[in-house]
Amino acid sequence: MDKKMNLTMLTDFYELTMANGYFETGMADNIAYFDMFFRRVPDGGGYAILAGIEQVVDYLKNLKFTEEDIEFLRSKNLFCEEFLEYLRNFEFTCDVWAIPEGTPIFPHEPILTVRGPVIQAQFIETMILLTINHQSLIATKASRIARAAMGRPVMEFGTRRAHGGDAAIYGARAAYIGGCAATACTIADRDYGIKSTGTMAHSWVQMFPDEYTAFKKYAEIYPDNCTLLVDTYNVLKSGVPAAIKVFKEMKPKNMGIRLDSGDIAYLTKKARKMLDEAGLQDCKIVVSNSLDEYIIRDVILEGACIDSFGVGERLITAKSQPVFGGVYKLVALEVDGEMIPKIKISENIEKITNPGFKNLYRLYDKETGKCRGDVLTMADETIPEVEEYEIFDPNAVWKRTTVTNYTVRDLHVQLFDKGKCVYESPSVDEIREYCKEQMETLWSETLRFENPQTYYVDLSQKLWDMKNELLSGKK
Amino acid sequence: MDKKMNLTMLTDFYELTMANGYFETGMADNIAYFDMFFRRVPDGGGYAILAGIEQVVDYLKNLKFTEEDIEFLRSKNLFCEEFLEYLRNFEFTCDVWAIPEGTPIFPHEPILTVRGPVIQAQFIETMILLTINHQSLIATKASRIARAAMGRPVMEFGTRRAHGGDAAIYGARAAYIGGCAATACTIADRDYGIKSTGTMAHSWVQMFPDEYTAFKKYAEIYPDNCTLLVDTYNVLKSGVPAAIKVFKEMKPKNMGIRLDSGDIAYLTKKARKMLDEAGLQDCKIVVSNSLDEYIIRDVILEGACIDSFGVGERLITAKSQPVFGGVYKLVALEVDGEMIPKIKISENIEKITNPGFKNLYRLYDKETGKCRGDVLTMADETIPEVEEYEIFDPNAVWKRTTVTNYTVRDLHVQLFDKGKCVYESPSVDEIREYCKEQMETLWSETLRFENPQTYYVDLSQKLWDMKNELLSGKK
Repeated sequence: MDKKMNLTMLTDFYELTMANGYFETGMADNIAYFDMFFRRVPDGGGYAILAGIEQVVDYLKNLKFTEEDIEFLRSKNLFCEEFLEYLRNFEFTCDVWAIPEGTPIFPHEPILTVRGPVIQAQFIETMILLTINHQSLIATKASRIARAAMGRPVMEFGTRRAHGGDAAIYGARAAYIGGCAATACTIADRDYGIKSTGTMAHSWVQMFPDEYTAFKKYAEIYPDNCTLLVDTYNVLKSGVPAAIKVFKEMKPKNMGIRLDSGDIAYLTKKARKMLDEAGLQDCKIVVSNSLDEYIIRDVILEGACIDSFGVGERLITAKSQPVFGGVYKLVALEVDGEMIPKIKISENIEKITNPGFKNLYRLYDKETGKCRGDVLTMADETIPEVEEYEIFDPNAVWKRTTVTNYTVRDLHVQLFDKGKCVYESPSVDEIREYCKEQMETLWSETLRFENPQTYYVDLSQKLWDMKNELLSGKK
Repeated sequence: MDKKMNLTMLTDFYELTMANGYFETGMADNIAYFDMFFRRVPDGGGYAILAGIEQVVDYLKNLKFTEEDIEFLRSKNLFCEEFLEYLRNFEFTCDVWAIPEGTPIFPHEPILTVRGPVIQAQFIETMILLTINHQSLIATKASRIARAAMGRPVMEFGTRRAHGGDAAIYGARAAYIGGCAATACTIADRDYGIKSTGTMAHSWVQMFPDEYTAFKKYAEIYPDNCTLLVDTYNVLKSGVPAAIKVFKEMKPKNMGIRLDSGDIAYLTKKARKMLDEAGLQDCKIVVSNSLDEYIIRDVILEGACIDSFGVGERLITAKSQPVFGGVYKLVALEVDGEMIPKIKISENIEKITNPGFKNLYRLYDKETGKCRGDVLTMADETIPEVEEYEIFDPNAVWKRTTVTNYTVRDLHVQLFDKGKCVYESPSVDEIREYCKEQMETLWSETLRFENPQTYYVDLSQKLWDMKNELLSGKK
């Protein structure tokens, strides 16, 4: 889908008024650096999962203003003709770096950095934010929900409650990256190879004289994968008994029953007992109906007998907190070849930016493989893999820790080199697998749903000093 | 955008397994009736605003399975070849009726009704729900936010926090229908004529040595529409004074300042005073930053001096309740030319459906023009405009009211007649105007943000009797 649509004009209008402004002031080619980062993990969690990079790459590869776009902009009587001519011949020449999709990320880290002529680097803000905010929101929620299911597969069932088609499709993609096992969204399977799944609605059952007939017909047609929806009339009195009868008569492979209403814990325990007593130990129980990580955790604790979950609206909209607040901020300029770091001051300390062109390193403990923390440095700094490295909390500099026996990983990969794409996106399966591996590197304290331990995102001494110089200079 | 994309495969996979099932059981052409309706107004409000019908029409007009789709489905090894051939030659032949976009709607009303071969009428469920759920969610939220602003324009600023591109574009459309005055989303202007607007980001200000220079350059380029962002450094100490200086020197038309942070009530009062003292009574104050209907109501009550609002993430995601729970249920079958009403039973009374093919009438008081309530009837019933008509609460049948001096409006319009589109969608401007008019027909008790009076959605005696027969028969 993304490959076919030209989304160049999917941009906040002020990107265009600013672009024209830079053009008219002769500043268009001034080199600027922008960072995308976020400030808070949704749902009060301890980590987020980055997703959406592949779609950002597609967007940047396909930037092009059509004649229709130019005509539309001309009609606004705001833009000079030379600027419109510039847009007609628009060529993307920026450098872009980002963290790979599927990586656990933390507040204040540069997720993506753009370097290039300010007219371009500014313009692409809206789509970068839109794309990464959306997919990271859903991947993060999916990661929580999949973890709550403790190894049971979670299927993404939210298409009908998604915020439009893209939300359904890219939401399914992001949910898969975050840990879902499959989706109900057929087009996400066709276009991204995310396994689609589904069996029947209540209407199927209602189309037949009774549940037994509806189930039997279904089992005849789908003898290899037969999940029957047992809650159209009465789960325990009619649904499960009819399903059992059909299973025993028809002996389909991969039997399952699905419940979409009622008290999950009570009904699944009763249904499991009925199935087992009928010798149908192999029959799986699938549950859906307004689930999320909290309900899943609780029904498992209650001893509900559930083999897999279908999760709809609360996943595809990230209902409990449907906003991933990523922002895109100017962090540096190049003036006469010299790098000038820029900072955005705010009364709210959380909103003060980390200035300058930066690297982002993750330190792993050699023995356990677990993360020790992340360190932001100036672009000309590296963190050596030496005997020990001292990190400190940028908000409480007396809190210092010496890290030993560690490996260092540069988290950024380059996506574009002077406008040329130098990145090949992994498949969603590869991203999902990578995400799973990276999740293993986090401490359980970071994974807690509520009140997790804050992950260390520290600044190098040099970066910290520079930031403080700017802060004191500005005030 | 919708005109270019083929979204036929944007469907839950079970629609396809059921379709193949109906095909294989020889039931494909059995005539079925489905209603879309919703059960609860988001945010505990008293009404919702329907939106998305134009996009449903576009979707239904363009239903087509490509060779790529057929090949994909074949690869699943689930579908018979005859069914795939049927899809290859798929032709939509259903009748579709709906309430016009922009209409205030209420729980349990058929928003949209489909009559046709079950294989088709079932298949289109996912996209109908997805489209109407999304746009009605945003239109409803926008209506609340626009009302809170008490006549001050509200601009939709949420693109970067929307759940993907469609959520941004159709969200802007729905927000406009619900009452927003403009959008930041440029492509929504190009494609739907929704006025796009925007001026500058903090980065524009940071690109210049100081605010004065940044503002002056902007005023030179945009002398006719000059809204300056005054909160990059310090609103009252530097931002507003620099803006005043530029306004006095440059005398642009349509002056404005924008605040995107800090305490809105305090800062706007102070800023207003500074502007007025400088003789800039004409300068408008625009405010943004995590606004919604509650904050807008409160800052207006506090006496904040605000001329217009920019509302982003809390509108475009309907943050406080991001799900519009519309469902699509089988309500009747035709068997040998006879209509068989169908009901979905549930332990939860709210989840029991209204069976049968139905009409939906709205009664208006002739004198005040206000709504008296809505009445659902069987399809062969009409409500006469006579001297009096008795309505009753379907959940408390002893509560009866006699309506006099009323006019009756059939809320349904036909969209498709045997698969042929017979509906021309109004423009978004017409829909927005119609919505505004219709909002005037609601009582203020229905409009309250919290704990509104429940609007009457009653059943005709005949429909009520039929429903109760089914309920007692099934149990």
